Amino acid sequence: MLLLSNEEIESLVSVESCLGSLERAYKAHADGKAINRPRSDLYLPGTTANGVYAFKSMEGGLVESQLVALRLNSDVIRWERRGDRLVKEKGAVAPGGKWVGLILLFSAQTGEPLAIFPDGVIQRWRVAGTGALAARYLARDNASVLGIYGAGWQASAHVPMMCGVRKIKKVQVYSPTETRRIAFCNEMENKTGVSVVPVASPEAARKDADILVAATNAVSRVIAPGWLVPGVHVTCVKTSELGDETIRRADRVVIHTRKLAPENYIAGLGDEKIECHDPVEFLQGQKSHGSLTAEAPFWADSPELKDIVAGRIPGRESAGEITCFINNIGLGLQFAALGGAVYTEARRKGIGREIPTDWFLETVHP
Amino acid sequence: MLLLSNEEIESLVSVESCLGSLERAYKAHADGKAINRPRSDLYLPGTTANGVYAFKSMEGGLVESQLVALRLNSDVIRWERRGDRLVKEKGAVAPGGKWVGLILLFSAQTGEPLAIFPDGVIQRWRVAGTGALAARYLARDNASVLGIYGAGWQASAHVPMMCGVRKIKKVQVYSPTETRRIAFCNEMENKTGVSVVPVASPEAARKDADILVAATNAVSRVIAPGWLVPGVHVTCVKTSELGDETIRRADRVVIHTRKLAPENYIAGLGDEKIECHDPVEFLQGQKSHGSLTAEAPFWADSPELKDIVAGRIPGRESAGEITCFINNIGLGLQFAALGGAVYTEARRKGIGREIPTDWFLETVHP
Repeated sequence: MLLLSNEEIESLVSVESCLGSLERAYKAHADGKAINRPRSDLYLPGTTANGVYAFKSMEGGLVESQLVALRLNSDVIRWERRGDRLVKEKGAVAPGGKWVGLILLFSAQTGEPLAIFPDGVIQRWRVAGTGALAARYLARDNASVLGIYGAGWQASAHVPMMCGVRKIKKVQVYSPTETRRIAFCNEMENKTGVSVVPVASPEAARKDADILVAATNAVSRVIAPGWLVPGVHVTCVKTSELGDETIRRADRVVIHTRKLAPENYIAGLGDEKIECHDPVEFLQGQKSHGSLTAEAPFWADSPELKDIVAGRIPGRESAGEITCFINNIGLGLQFAALGGAVYTEARRKGIGREIPTDWFLETVHP
Repeated sequence: MLLLSNEEIESLVSVESCLGSLERAYKAHADGKAINRPRSDLYLPGTTANGVYAFKSMEGGLVESQLVALRLNSDVIRWERRGDRLVKEKGAVAPGGKWVGLILLFSAQTGEPLAIFPDGVIQRWRVAGTGALAARYLARDNASVLGIYGAGWQASAHVPMMCGVRKIKKVQVYSPTETRRIAFCNEMENKTGVSVVPVASPEAARKDADILVAATNAVSRVIAPGWLVPGVHVTCVKTSELGDETIRRADRVVIHTRKLAPENYIAGLGDEKIECHDPVEFLQGQKSHGSLTAEAPFWADSPELKDIVAGRIPGRESAGEITCFINNIGLGLQFAALGGAVYTEARRKGIGREIPTDWFLETVHP
């Protein structure tokens, strides 16, 4: 069985292989050749003074590669009020001030565990890769200016990924801290060979942009409705970055998956699942289970990414359309696709730490 | 992080600690101090000539021990017709002719992975331990004769477990193969110090028995309705071993959990879950998703084990009652309870293989 580090994983996969493996996975999913077990979050309040414990898991499998991936996160979460905002923080409370997110990869031929590796790099790639894959079908063919909001972890994956689907000539970056956005632009320019310019206002980032990407930590709106001019494509890593009014401006909305929220199981609230995005009010005792009213957003029935990848639903149909992709919640399938690509490449190059598979097998029929 | 083998696990936990940790877990569950994510099964047909690939997972967490367990099975399954019966076989197709079932244990204080070990021994213990725990509340106080059907893996855990909750003086064992049942009785007598006698007919096993246990592979009825005389307690590892008519004879029925069936996700049938026990007809294309009619059995609303353990619902109330416990489907919680007991004991005794926890941590915020 193979163990890989985030550093090894970073060196193993290219933008092209990432986009290719995601595209094949969504196509397979549309064709009934892939499966997904939706995300569940198990909460255990009262176990630590650091916050609330949360165990997140999701699974996906692909017939073509004969691989199944389990992705899990074992986190201690704290919600903090910062001014008007409620901010969710994952504490780095594992030994050495670290986090715990893992991908376990299994062979669907033999059942054996093939690899275990941290999820950090792949997590970033799958979000940005999925956003870029949607842009392949939704942005104008001649899109060449990318406006991006954010200069962090998610933004840094979106720049090369978007350059992987369109001939981007210029990237305009806005984020509130000047030194941060300048450093980010230097890093991205070196990485992509494309001109990446820091701009001093949100308005300047969207000027003449063909593609707008919100990849921030903000829970409030980043992209104003008025910025969506004919022909633009817009995407986000959280729906709050767009907001209803901006999304309504789009002529064509595509979402990642119609399974809108994770299935939460919370100690103290019985065994029934609570389907909502962030059950903070339940965890803090302000809501009881019975009080959940699931209000579907107006875009809940939009086509899914897999439908446009498989050609069942058209992507962009005219140069003047405003298109929008809502990257609304993750799928285990993404980890099967990218985990598989990483694993194959690691085996080919002989990278990683080997531990005996036999430690994880058993001779008794379970 | 600690790795343990089934052999090490077998040496680590006693009948008493097993029953004790399960009892505390069910009590905590009733009190809102434990949580469970119900079992899901992800199926990927068409990946191997050996059968259908199935990935099973469930999770549970306990506030008291601050532990969370994930239990997973990665199996290749084949259904075979044997005469009139459809038998489900898990292929030993992992390297060396082995199976893959794992328990991953996490700290709810720090999120860190604490241990990984195979599920085989614990799987057997949790089924038998749960059956015995139910008998503690449902069998007559003076129950002393145990009649048991089966001489395999599950039966061999039920004998010592039942001896752990009642002063059993005699065990009567029936299974079809004479040599097998004789060997089983010798083994069990050595293990428990109680008289364990092989009998040549099903009827002889139930004669004067205060507790009847069906722990077989049979998918047809093992215990006839007429065998349930006043004062007896009956239990099973599969509902088919009792059948509706036998269950209806009981004055008091308790079930393990009201979540009756796993949530199945099957490639080719879309992303909607199919809730049923063995989706073989869906896997073989004889049924489409839309054709699922979920018929709840008549005992579906019976009290759960946790309710009688917590004293919310009475157990046996008179010597003449016929009581029945239906061990209907597993809970992740059982693995948190027993996995935690095993882990604590392994740490205390310094048993197991240590690998660096740091291999499974990350410095990036996922």
